[in-house]
Amino acid sequence: MKQADIVVIGGSAAGLAAAFTARRHYADKSITLVRKEKQVLIPCGIPYIFGTLGSSQKNLIPDAGLQKNRVDLLLAEVTKVDRETRTVYTTEGEIRYERLVLAMGSRPAMPPIPGFDLDGVFAAVKDAEFLDNLRKRLEIVDDVVVVGGGFIGIEFADEINKMGNKNITVVELMDHCLSLAYDTEFCIEMEELLKSRGISIRTSTKVEQISGNGKVEKVILSDGTEVKADAVILGIGAVANVDLARKLGLRIGLTGGVAVDRTMKTSDDNIYACGDCAEKISFFGGKASPLKLASIASAEARIAGANLFGIRRENVGTVGVWSTCVGDLALATAGLTEAMASGQGYDVVAVTVQCPNRHPGTLPGAAKITVKLIFERNSGVILGGQVMGDVSAGEMINAVSACVQSRMTADQIAMFQMGTHPLLTASPIVYPLVDAAETAIGMMHRS
Amino acid sequence: MKQADIVVIGGSAAGLAAAFTARRHYADKSITLVRKEKQVLIPCGIPYIFGTLGSSQKNLIPDAGLQKNRVDLLLAEVTKVDRETRTVYTTEGEIRYERLVLAMGSRPAMPPIPGFDLDGVFAAVKDAEFLDNLRKRLEIVDDVVVVGGGFIGIEFADEINKMGNKNITVVELMDHCLSLAYDTEFCIEMEELLKSRGISIRTSTKVEQISGNGKVEKVILSDGTEVKADAVILGIGAVANVDLARKLGLRIGLTGGVAVDRTMKTSDDNIYACGDCAEKISFFGGKASPLKLASIASAEARIAGANLFGIRRENVGTVGVWSTCVGDLALATAGLTEAMASGQGYDVVAVTVQCPNRHPGTLPGAAKITVKLIFERNSGVILGGQVMGDVSAGEMINAVSACVQSRMTADQIAMFQMGTHPLLTASPIVYPLVDAAETAIGMMHRS
Repeated sequence: MKQADIVVIGGSAAGLAAAFTARRHYADKSITLVRKEKQVLIPCGIPYIFGTLGSSQKNLIPDAGLQKNRVDLLLAEVTKVDRETRTVYTTEGEIRYERLVLAMGSRPAMPPIPGFDLDGVFAAVKDAEFLDNLRKRLEIVDDVVVVGGGFIGIEFADEINKMGNKNITVVELMDHCLSLAYDTEFCIEMEELLKSRGISIRTSTKVEQISGNGKVEKVILSDGTEVKADAVILGIGAVANVDLARKLGLRIGLTGGVAVDRTMKTSDDNIYACGDCAEKISFFGGKASPLKLASIASAEARIAGANLFGIRRENVGTVGVWSTCVGDLALATAGLTEAMASGQGYDVVAVTVQCPNRHPGTLPGAAKITVKLIFERNSGVILGGQVMGDVSAGEMINAVSACVQSRMTADQIAMFQMGTHPLLTASPIVYPLVDAAETAIGMMHRS
Repeated sequence: MKQADIVVIGGSAAGLAAAFTARRHYADKSITLVRKEKQVLIPCGIPYIFGTLGSSQKNLIPDAGLQKNRVDLLLAEVTKVDRETRTVYTTEGEIRYERLVLAMGSRPAMPPIPGFDLDGVFAAVKDAEFLDNLRKRLEIVDDVVVVGGGFIGIEFADEINKMGNKNITVVELMDHCLSLAYDTEFCIEMEELLKSRGISIRTSTKVEQISGNGKVEKVILSDGTEVKADAVILGIGAVANVDLARKLGLRIGLTGGVAVDRTMKTSDDNIYACGDCAEKISFFGGKASPLKLASIASAEARIAGANLFGIRRENVGTVGVWSTCVGDLALATAGLTEAMASGQGYDVVAVTVQCPNRHPGTLPGAAKITVKLIFERNSGVILGGQVMGDVSAGEMINAVSACVQSRMTADQIAMFQMGTHPLLTASPIVYPLVDAAETAIGMMHRS
């Protein structure tokens, strides 16, 4: 029987980061990664297969990292795990482990909508062949309805739109697209941009039925209107892959992920879980968090991988940092929005500032940058931030995230020592993180 | 006689940020800003007047902020200050103060080189008319020598080069350009880029003499070679403007700036100083620091402005965060370089990682990003970082700076929760700050 000190099940962000971290922390341990996919897709890159990249083959995670980190790859499907004998049974034989890492990810949520099983209804399944076939199918359709206006929904919509000559409609249940990540004013900017690119946005409405004769023909909304559809893309979220964990009798958490403690250990001392399949708690207050992101998966995996033979790290909870980009507009968020913070019971001070992203603003490439920071009024501690602007917003949010993770106060951020340059950033006099923090202090009535 | 609760002398980054911060913290105080320049130039934007902008008029700090913040402007030169009666004497009359803020900035250092007073030798004087005249002069010359290969030197060189049809030579005393901000490997990349753009780089050599008959004709170097020159630009650093402070009898610090405590107060209880004219201490070890940057000036001004009528903030010392950009290559630095940290006596672990700035790397706009992080071996605390890549490096360095300012350890950075997106950042699996930190942990032999 094969044997490895560490067996990782799953080959995407969580599995890879767990294996690589384990290698760095435990140089002498043998590591085997088991996955069923011949090729692994970059999960966040999937929407870009449709318009920008043109093929799933341009959106692969290379296997070179496995060799470099001395991680053995077993291409197989796991059929069973015996916790007593610490044995993973696969379609390609059995393997014994000392420590097991579950990194099985998630699958698209399937809504309980009549007609979701019609031909022409697709979810964003993470499979190269499936996606290439979907792309071919989309090339020949005229009317596409995207169900769900979160990141996946709007990115799919914009990328399919780039394929040309299609009518695309995004249907969102909430009042605005992206409202789980941004406050309303930012959501509206993105909706306007999408509309200006020819995409129809239908918010505050629900898909009641997907209808057609064997093949999808139209989508019927809760407001009674019907939208013609040759294809429907479901982008309503993801569900943790916990079938195996359930079979194993591991504890499952409130949001449906494998329950873990702060060391990423499951209810079995020899089994860890990380990424989309693992239950998360929020950095803010410690409640269960439903967020599922590759960046969270990687961070959790670096905790799990380091802890396999001794506790070295603890998870402080999920901050939730992510971003999207349509055309020249990048939107990024870290931590709580104003609405979320207020809803959770924080006494919130929120400040939005705007400035050019270059100084002087007459320089080529200059664009408006908008930053909103959210603070708790009494402590002054930052709870979150949102950045809208050019491509640099994608890294500026990481400066915000560092402030959040360090639980910095508005006063500390007002003294933040940032680097500025005419061609790269806003002016130091109005640097938006600092400007927003200083404005917030005035609103806290502490002067 | 006029009277203001707060008088600020100087209208650039430090003076403006001090006045605006004072307004935010002391809503009812009257504030007057005294400056002699009709128009204030964006200091870091000065090199871009020559190639990119074409005129000093496109590189101005607008006065609108003064009105918005209810700051009175007095266009006048300060001739004297009486500390006893708290009176500022100017060419436009006298003004009494409760608190005085010195924000008089710096002027270009003039080297003790024979011939530096010849016609055709220029420093980067922060004056619109002077710079526009310099630009006109540079339009008709063929051979330009830039003395000094720091930021100002290389930015001037590249911008003058954009004016076309000139031979430009940068002369640098040290082994490499930019070596006060970057480790050698980054300096070399920038030097190679400048050379590929047609600029000659002469390092490890000194200008012995600027020679000519009334007007500059050539520059004679310490290695005996001569470089033809119709114009010479001096970019060898800046000297604090402390003439007034000396006259006032204020204490002057080791590097020649006005001495201040951590609240930015000078040796006079009613006088504060900030920006290039103020003495600085390093965030690392607390020694005197010669750094002069608009971003540091702004941060110090926000401390001074808040403290004028009660101590609200203390200066933790200068981290030193800055960046430059030539063509598509941005270089950014925060804190200590490996060489500086070793030189100061730290036991250093330095790690450099590279990855694409997009994921997949097949996306349009993908480029290589290089990140070097420097840690203290025993504590694991980050001492500095350098980022080289696309425009986003300008904000990524601010995430590094946040880590430095929070004195985060390699282990904390390895668990950093960053936001990632295919079109905006590196992949979460190889996100360079995290990857460098994790690699450093392995090198600390703590596993």
